[in-house]
Amino acid sequence: MDVMVLNGDGIGPEIMNAAIKIINKLHENFGLNINPVEYDIGAVTLDNGKWDLDHILDEARKYKAILKAPMGDPKLRNTGGTEKALDVILSLRFNLDLYANVRPVRLLPGVESPLKSYNNPDSINYTIIRENSEGLYSSHFGGLVLRDELAIDNQTITRKGTERISRFAFELAKKTKGSPKDGKKSVVCVDKSNVLRSFAFFRKIFSEVSSRYDEIVAKYMYADAMAQHMIIRPDELNVIVTENMFGDVLSDLGAATVGGLGFAYSGNISDNMGMFEPVHGSAPDIAGRNIANPTAMIMSTSMMLDWLGFGKFSKIIEDSLFNAIRSGVRTPDMGGNATTSYFTESILKNM
Amino acid sequence: MDVMVLNGDGIGPEIMNAAIKIINKLHENFGLNINPVEYDIGAVTLDNGKWDLDHILDEARKYKAILKAPMGDPKLRNTGGTEKALDVILSLRFNLDLYANVRPVRLLPGVESPLKSYNNPDSINYTIIRENSEGLYSSHFGGLVLRDELAIDNQTITRKGTERISRFAFELAKKTKGSPKDGKKSVVCVDKSNVLRSFAFFRKIFSEVSSRYDEIVAKYMYADAMAQHMIIRPDELNVIVTENMFGDVLSDLGAATVGGLGFAYSGNISDNMGMFEPVHGSAPDIAGRNIANPTAMIMSTSMMLDWLGFGKFSKIIEDSLFNAIRSGVRTPDMGGNATTSYFTESILKNM
Ligand SMILES: CC(C)[C@H](C(=O)O)[C@@H](O)C(=O)O
Ligand SMILES: CC(C)[C@H](C(=O)O)[C@@H](O)C(=O)O
Repeated sequence: MDVMVLNGDGIGPEIMNAAIKIINKLHENFGLNINPVEYDIGAVTLDNGKWDLDHILDEARKYKAILKAPMGDPKLRNTGGTEKALDVILSLRFNLDLYANVRPVRLLPGVESPLKSYNNPDSINYTIIRENSEGLYSSHFGGLVLRDELAIDNQTITRKGTERISRFAFELAKKTKGSPKDGKKSVVCVDKSNVLRSFAFFRKIFSEVSSRYDEIVAKYMYADAMAQHMIIRPDELNVIVTENMFGDVLSDLGAATVGGLGFAYSGNISDNMGMFEPVHGSAPDIAGRNIANPTAMIMSTSMMLDWLGFGKFSKIIEDSLFNAIRSGVRTPDMGGNATTSYFTESILKNM
Repeated sequence: MDVMVLNGDGIGPEIMNAAIKIINKLHENFGLNINPVEYDIGAVTLDNGKWDLDHILDEARKYKAILKAPMGDPKLRNTGGTEKALDVILSLRFNLDLYANVRPVRLLPGVESPLKSYNNPDSINYTIIRENSEGLYSSHFGGLVLRDELAIDNQTITRKGTERISRFAFELAKKTKGSPKDGKKSVVCVDKSNVLRSFAFFRKIFSEVSSRYDEIVAKYMYADAMAQHMIIRPDELNVIVTENMFGDVLSDLGAATVGGLGFAYSGNISDNMGMFEPVHGSAPDIAGRNIANPTAMIMSTSMMLDWLGFGKFSKIIEDSLFNAIRSGVRTPDMGGNATTSYFTESILKNM
């Protein structure tokens, strides 16, 4: 099966290289049938005209799964390359209707949380489902500035969008082990329904959908209270579902509690396609130096395989990765001095 | 000078009682000229028709300063009392044009942060300036639900609103000691200008205003990155300025890093009026049991006095409060067993 691979900018090609080596090894050793088709798409090739948005979307539509490295290059700020790279990610999400942005918040083995009470692997382990196809973000394709005096964006919440993202969250909760604290399966609807009608609408639809999932507890929390909760009692969380912009902010917050964006991986899922990517950026300051931490890229790859139905291979990746980290192999951001290649080789050796 | 006092619901009257005792003691011992005029305004009295919004606004306009306890009572959810209480706070903010919501994030003596690297008082000490008169929140007074299929709210950002809140932030930064880490004075503009035009507009106006403040460093950060920063390196922060909704979420996040809402105090400031309140709610579950922590209410009082030009008295309050806490006096939420009255008496004794 062909998978589209977007190499991105900055550290993108380096960490993608790690992911591809792992996919190839799984092919050689265990017969995984995945063929990564690499595309040199990123701020640089958008800037020099080698690629444009429509062209990328046309290619993307040929695939069931996409593996995406971070994009963006601040050097191209003046010529628009970085803005174009950002448009790639938002256009892929919106135009391919990848409505569920799945962002696990999981304390991996060997990684330190900045929170005092959370020291064991998986003591923080929940998933944020960020609505990815509407909300405040949809105004990216609209938005108004009037006479340099006033600017307006819209937050749009639809029944269809809220129903499908709520269902997605409950279906995911079914498949989890529940919260680390007591194994209870729950979905928390996060909004500011006390202040805005669109959020109250979101909550209402969520509540309708929840009645079809008796076995999962439906909970409700305001976004400000959730920001607190994620710091004070993250072990009580299982699945969170929220609007696009809240999901953006809360998922970065979650990532910070489990060691930072270096460990934040994600999937953007539609009813028939999935795009998988690290949450972190292209880190141009450390690009080309063979020191980038490929963990989030590798975990995104694992998530892709799992979603494609290759859960067995995804398990092999995670076991080998965690064993490597447990045995002390760490990149500089993790306080060690392993290079990206050494880190990757250690994983491959474990497989 | 008369000050309007809103007693609120739940623990409101209890913690307000602590604040009033302190004000009265400052009057007796040191001649502070403040006369608290108490109003029994909250969800209950809104629900039973004793008060209505217009009436409250008319009264409020007679004062320069308002001290407000938390409002809301979940028991009144069906009759609308809680919604009305929420409308009081939003109406006061919007109708009195209290455009600057000042929310200090400060690790007080004797309070434990959940963050591993932050153990000393004031090792976290910065201020979030939440724009309080427009942004996504202004849609509270509008908002549309269409055919039960779709809901829309607007985020409105104006030049006037952004100029004045930016100026406010820079003026505040001037008066601070800078960041705990290195004393550098800075204002960080927090937005998602990469995604929405209204945020790009916010950033542009902020940047224009910043050019008038050469002595303060102007910085820029996306809201998701700021959520991380507040957990990973809060000691680098001095003043943050942001849109209303982001300010709501980020200030609760900040509060969590300094021990929770029990220690989060705030001011809502216009060009000629100020309303001061704890950020926490009315905690109906512990109301009437004399165990509520009045710290946020007392710190809000101190902030009010400082804003009114009575900085000397504000200093006396803080010194006595911190001494009481340092000497081991703690309410149950702080891990002790002091009652609200004992906690208050300990402060009064120190004054
Ligand atoms: C790059 C940016 C547009 C993107 C977003 O805001 O969604 C990123 O922050 C993310 O969370 O994936
Ligand atoms: C009570 C609610 C309307 C309020 C808000 O959302 O602003 C509160 O959360 C706050 O932060 O003061």
